[in-house]
Amino acid sequence: MEKEHYFIDKYLKTLSIKSSKYPIGIGDDCAIIDTKEKLITSKDVSVSGVHFPKELDSYFIAYRSVAVAISDIFAMGSKPTAYLLGITHPEPNDNWFKSFSRGLCDLNNDYNINLIGGDLTKGELNISVTAFGQAPANLLKRTGANKGDLIFISDTLGRGKKGLINYRKNKKDIDQNHYLKPKLPINLIPKLAELASSCIDVSDGLLIDLNRICSSSNVGARINLSKNIYITDKNDLIAGDDYVLCFTAKKEFKNEILVLDSSIKLIGHMEEGKEVKVFDEKDEEIKYDNEGWEPFTTI
Amino acid sequence: MEKEHYFIDKYLKTLSIKSSKYPIGIGDDCAIIDTKEKLITSKDVSVSGVHFPKELDSYFIAYRSVAVAISDIFAMGSKPTAYLLGITHPEPNDNWFKSFSRGLCDLNNDYNINLIGGDLTKGELNISVTAFGQAPANLLKRTGANKGDLIFISDTLGRGKKGLINYRKNKKDIDQNHYLKPKLPINLIPKLAELASSCIDVSDGLLIDLNRICSSSNVGARINLSKNIYITDKNDLIAGDDYVLCFTAKKEFKNEILVLDSSIKLIGHMEEGKEVKVFDEKDEEIKYDNEGWEPFTTI
Repeated sequence: MEKEHYFIDKYLKTLSIKSSKYPIGIGDDCAIIDTKEKLITSKDVSVSGVHFPKELDSYFIAYRSVAVAISDIFAMGSKPTAYLLGITHPEPNDNWFKSFSRGLCDLNNDYNINLIGGDLTKGELNISVTAFGQAPANLLKRTGANKGDLIFISDTLGRGKKGLINYRKNKKDIDQNHYLKPKLPINLIPKLAELASSCIDVSDGLLIDLNRICSSSNVGARINLSKNIYITDKNDLIAGDDYVLCFTAKKEFKNEILVLDSSIKLIGHMEEGKEVKVFDEKDEEIKYDNEGWEPFTTI
Repeated sequence: MEKEHYFIDKYLKTLSIKSSKYPIGIGDDCAIIDTKEKLITSKDVSVSGVHFPKELDSYFIAYRSVAVAISDIFAMGSKPTAYLLGITHPEPNDNWFKSFSRGLCDLNNDYNINLIGGDLTKGELNISVTAFGQAPANLLKRTGANKGDLIFISDTLGRGKKGLINYRKNKKDIDQNHYLKPKLPINLIPKLAELASSCIDVSDGLLIDLNRICSSSNVGARINLSKNIYITDKNDLIAGDDYVLCFTAKKEFKNEILVLDSSIKLIGHMEEGKEVKVFDEKDEEIKYDNEGWEPFTTI
């Protein structure tokens, strides 16, 4: 048997559970999605040495690569249901795949999702994930923010970056765990889709991502910094790798939103303008040299 | 503006045409697929130095990578409608992207498909494509072949391999063109879905791919070699990169199938057994050392 199918059959096929929505498992030219619902889909690529350290255990490579990809489904106000997986690997072996498939299995259980197909081929380590979800009635787009809307984040910022530093120091703590196994805001769905006006997941840093909402919605944003919105310092706003949601909502939904989860923080509001401005507790504007993480650097 | 969005906005966004089925273009966390139809989807990864030569013009990298991915949709008996594109590139620049987007544009026009989203990030050159199509009423699975069914291929074999050799010799001919811009059997769809019992696209070589039908359908296959089914020699059956369809059908559909396209060739029939056996014109069995292309070698 060729290597490609040896690894797929031994380590991945069992992760693919047939259902009425996904009626054929891994093993044909295509996967079938049998649904009358409007679908949302997104693709995310994680590259060794760029998105995760080269020596990272394949358990975490699997968990992390799929988690950051399905984060885009949450950002539209929905729960992911399935994914396709493209694995490029220089020299796959049983040990690597055993740990990798354990990571997928845990992720699948944590988020109740299903692997429905993919590809395995040779090359530098590269994990490409196509995530699927059902579109909610109120789809959360980046274009929906309005002047006066409040801005929220679903959890504290900077933990991903701090977690990577702690991983390198071999300091096992909650931050390292968040970097290796990002915890996504599954408990906010589906309520968030009813309340928010726009949403994005903070993958590259709050400033860069909130600026995407600003330019898509043609409106400015004002963030009022305070100790409760970040862990370490103001640079948490440009840290990236957080996978918290940043969303906007009408003022009247403030209390309804804050009781959804105690981790949610109100960080500012949308206002006239084109971009994000950040003010400290003394109401002085803070300038940043860069907005956040950019893929064309390496970690 | 960060590089990632500079290239996406300048070269890819214009390729994404909004429609009722794909109502938002590139630029949000997810793409929307608004359809009541059953969908089929497939992921295919093309890696520089493995699936195409490292120095290949990015026009052909684009055309070829998407063509070989949508080939899986044809193999299920359907026409592709859209795709997501994950580009990993070590150092993107305007020249590369200009030519790459021209390749996508021509492919989109040739097959009437639409780019609906994706990801661009840093790493060794790697193109991952997720293709979508509408599932036909009679979905062509690998599991549908029966004893006695005839075996057909949609076109001659060996052209992909010969085309790569000619590309290296700088010999511009129809084979090189087929390697660089695989011609997919769009004219057979949707009729093929009504007539065939099983189908696969020949990407890794006829023997390896037809063996996949055998093992999925629990039946053997007998190929009767003759000059008309290959271009050069018996090794065309293990050449790969052909992207012709290999399909089975009941005997009574023989004539109806052969008139679909003059390129279609009858090459054998399914019989008792578990695997493919090949016989020459004197009815002597031909043995092969290997079955076809395996990704864990390099080109």
